[in-house]
Amino acid sequence: MQLAKVIGDVVVTRKDDNLTGITLLVLQPIAADGTPSGRTLVAVDAAGAGVGETVFFVRGKEASFPWHPTPVPADAGVVGIVDHWDLG
Amino acid sequence: MQLAKVIGDVVVTRKDDNLTGITLLVLQPIAADGTPSGRTLVAVDAAGAGVGETVFFVRGKEASFPWHPTPVPADAGVVGIVDHWDLG
Amino acid sequence: MQLAKVIGDVVVTRKDDNLTGITLLVLQPIAADGTPSGRTLVAVDAAGAGVGETVFFVRGKEASFPWHPTPVPADAGVVGIVDHWDLG
Amino acid sequence: MQLAKVIGDVVVTRKDDNLTGITLLVLQPIAADGTPSGRTLVAVDAAGAGVGETVFFVRGKEASFPWHPTPVPADAGVVGIVDHWDLG
Amino acid sequence: MQLAKVIGDVVVTRKDDNLTGITLLVLQPIAADGTPSGRTLVAVDAAGAGVGETVFFVRGKEASFPWHPTPVPADAGVVGIVDHWDLG
Repeated sequence: MQLAKVIGDVVVTRKDDNLTGITLLVLQPIAADGTPSGRTLVAVDAAGAGVGETVFFVRGKEASFPWHPTPVPADAGVVGIVDHWDLG
Repeated sequence: MQLAKVIGDVVVTRKDDNLTGITLLVLQPIAADGTPSGRTLVAVDAAGAGVGETVFFVRGKEASFPWHPTPVPADAGVVGIVDHWDLG
Repeated sequence: MQLAKVIGDVVVTRKDDNLTGITLLVLQPIAADGTPSGRTLVAVDAAGAGVGETVFFVRGKEASFPWHPTPVPADAGVVGIVDHWDLG
Repeated sequence: MQLAKVIGDVVVTRKDDNLTGITLLVLQPIAADGTPSGRTLVAVDAAGAGVGETVFFVRGKEASFPWHPTPVPADAGVVGIVDHWDLG
Repeated sequence: MQLAKVIGDVVVTRKDDNLTGITLLVLQPIAADGTPSGRTLVAVDAAGAGVGETVFFVRGKEASFPWHPTPVPADAGVVGIVDHWDLG
């Protein structure tokens, strides 16, 4: 998984039926030091996150696990909202 | 998932049977600011997209979910046509 | 999926039993403009492709779908031979 | 899999239920010569690792195998703590 | 899949039970011209390879296919030892 900032959302009316009612967020991945790291991407939201929050997201089929057994065609999903992280 | 522009299509007559009747699009991924981001790729189309449209696509086995249970050998698929996106 | 040129083949006698009888091709991925794009790789061939042909290939478990239900341990597979592609 | 150093942990209270009770570690992947290699990431811990230890981790759905059949939405997981490695 | 040289092995005593008895090799991927290409990684060995040999390996869940149905938590596995390859 990676840490990310939620930086926006996407409005899509014509889409696969299994995406109906699912929020699509635009994420900017961040490194452990909080700086942007890698490309922006679109993720489904399983955690109720909003713009400006720090989240962590999962890539791959695992992104659809929260909607199991619905075969949601997603390859990235927010699965938690981060309180804080510590570097030891 | 990523945002992308549809920039072309591919004609393939000799192919795996489970790809028969499925449109193959050439995509240019774009970043949240609309600029090209990353390599062009070929994706199956589950949304009825056309050249010039902005779409979002999914990578991995999830690309074949719209044809489930047919085992379509695809690793990228257009699953929605984007109306607009907002950066907060 | 990505477009690629077939640039060679690999001879492997000691291998996983489920790869027996499957041709292994060396591919050079190409971008939409026909130029090389990314690293060469080895792919199983489900389309009967030969050296010099332009193909498109799939990454991931999907590469083994044409041999389903045999669990072919492959992560890249040629699933079509390209006639031509058009950029709109 | 890749070798990595555990460099921190993440505190997440609002998350997918299937992540409850699972430790989330911040990893810095390292190359075979011990130097940092690639981006930091967040991984679930199936090995009881702590900050400062050298581990090896797996990417993809395989990261959730230790919790099978619970569909843990994770794409990276620590599956072993490294004693040492040898370059021949 | 990719071609690689086996450059070492990893000793791990505390690990997921399903990795017990499986050899872990350090690989350096190589390009079609034989030069190093990309990061070193750790792979399970399903082919009986040794340090110094040229192999080809698979990424993803497919790496665990040779141990099916044991859910080996591996994302890279050596599935063949290369005799030679030809560029046409």
